[in-house]
Amino acid sequence: MTFTAQILTLYPEIFPGPLGLSLAGRALAEGTWACDPIHIRDFATDRHRTVDDTPAGGGAGMVLKADILAAAVDHAMAKAPALPVIAMTPRGAPITQRRIRQLAQGPGVTLLCGRFEGFDERIFEARPIEQISMGDIILSGGEMGALMLLDACVRLLPGVMGAASSGVEESFERGLLEYPHYTRPVEWEGRTIPQVLRSGDHAKIAAWRKQRAEDDTRLRRPDLWERHIGVRDQSPSGAQRETKDLS
Amino acid sequence: MTFTAQILTLYPEIFPGPLGLSLAGRALAEGTWACDPIHIRDFATDRHRTVDDTPAGGGAGMVLKADILAAAVDHAMAKAPALPVIAMTPRGAPITQRRIRQLAQGPGVTLLCGRFEGFDERIFEARPIEQISMGDIILSGGEMGALMLLDACVRLLPGVMGAASSGVEESFERGLLEYPHYTRPVEWEGRTIPQVLRSGDHAKIAAWRKQRAEDDTRLRRPDLWERHIGVRDQSPSGAQRETKDLS
Repeated sequence: MTFTAQILTLYPEIFPGPLGLSLAGRALAEGTWACDPIHIRDFATDRHRTVDDTPAGGGAGMVLKADILAAAVDHAMAKAPALPVIAMTPRGAPITQRRIRQLAQGPGVTLLCGRFEGFDERIFEARPIEQISMGDIILSGGEMGALMLLDACVRLLPGVMGAASSGVEESFERGLLEYPHYTRPVEWEGRTIPQVLRSGDHAKIAAWRKQRAEDDTRLRRPDLWERHIGVRDQSPSGAQRETKDLS
Repeated sequence: MTFTAQILTLYPEIFPGPLGLSLAGRALAEGTWACDPIHIRDFATDRHRTVDDTPAGGGAGMVLKADILAAAVDHAMAKAPALPVIAMTPRGAPITQRRIRQLAQGPGVTLLCGRFEGFDERIFEARPIEQISMGDIILSGGEMGALMLLDACVRLLPGVMGAASSGVEESFERGLLEYPHYTRPVEWEGRTIPQVLRSGDHAKIAAWRKQRAEDDTRLRRPDLWERHIGVRDQSPSGAQRETKDLS
């Protein structure tokens, strides 16, 4: 089944763009996923093709009009009713790897990309649109976040990565940073690959990696670590899962 | 002064890509910023132009070699010694709007984009490289994150947005979500723009927006809200700042 990405945007020429290269590009060429950018401006109704207007109450910038957005969203929903509609907005819920995996297991996604100051809020009251944030930074529009979200989804589609990195995202979904990697040369600028990784002892290697993932998470991301500890303590099968992760 | 973006990548054709459009594209054409992708593969030393090797200790995927990465980073640092070097990695510190603003006020940035399983960890011991994460999701490479980071920086460069949205990012840096926006038509599908925004009373409008920013942050992002409250309580001039924000 093809994963369909519909992108509502004022810059349809951005897509697939970088997603036309590398693994995502090959998967696109093979029909594993489809990329369908839709120009929001096509739903403007005046001869100037207006999509935005000044903010009610004053202030800088322009706001995307609810009526135009609704026409575009309705078109996308009619074309592909099964796809969840997601707006890229800093007011949304932070994206998670769990949500990415859910999306990748579904039929696709319709992404609504804003520009200017954002969307007329009434669009979110009047249409079933999930609001997602790609991070607490301010972008010029939703398009870069859409590229990132789609990249994260496409790599999980069947056949795109193979079994190559399935273990990695399991690790991330458990809420830990990944352990550090090393490769040849064994010695480089006087720095050697940790001895344990060259030992051939798989149990020791797994234990070392688990320890480093935990240590690095605790040191670098106390926020993730607190959550990880909380989840582990609440899970009745926590001990079993820990053991399985080492195998 | 031109803001210089050097991007070390295995996919130099991605850049400027979407950053060649819209405001960022105009700023690029005007010389406000410069985009200089550097192909990591150019620093390979064998005839197969190898850049990666299997992970020490076993496991799926490939790891970017420290010796090749160092050659590429050294080249970039020699070319533009004033630029901070940042690696895009999920093991890094989460990006913040504060860091974006710091970067935008500086001479530019050298971004190191990984592919495959990641970087040989020794590169971070041997070279002064900041590690930054664009979010807790797994991407096929660092390029999409680099596009996002550069978009966030470029819009802050002098002359790119004008004064248009400076207020917005001040708001975000205080750790609150932005208040919702509305624009014409006043009534749409039976939903009207909140009365206060049509009152012309600037003090009331500012108070409403502040209240909505706080309410929405508390409801949607308790994590941000906790931090916001903490910062406000610790600041001796907190009360004064609050007043100023309303003016």
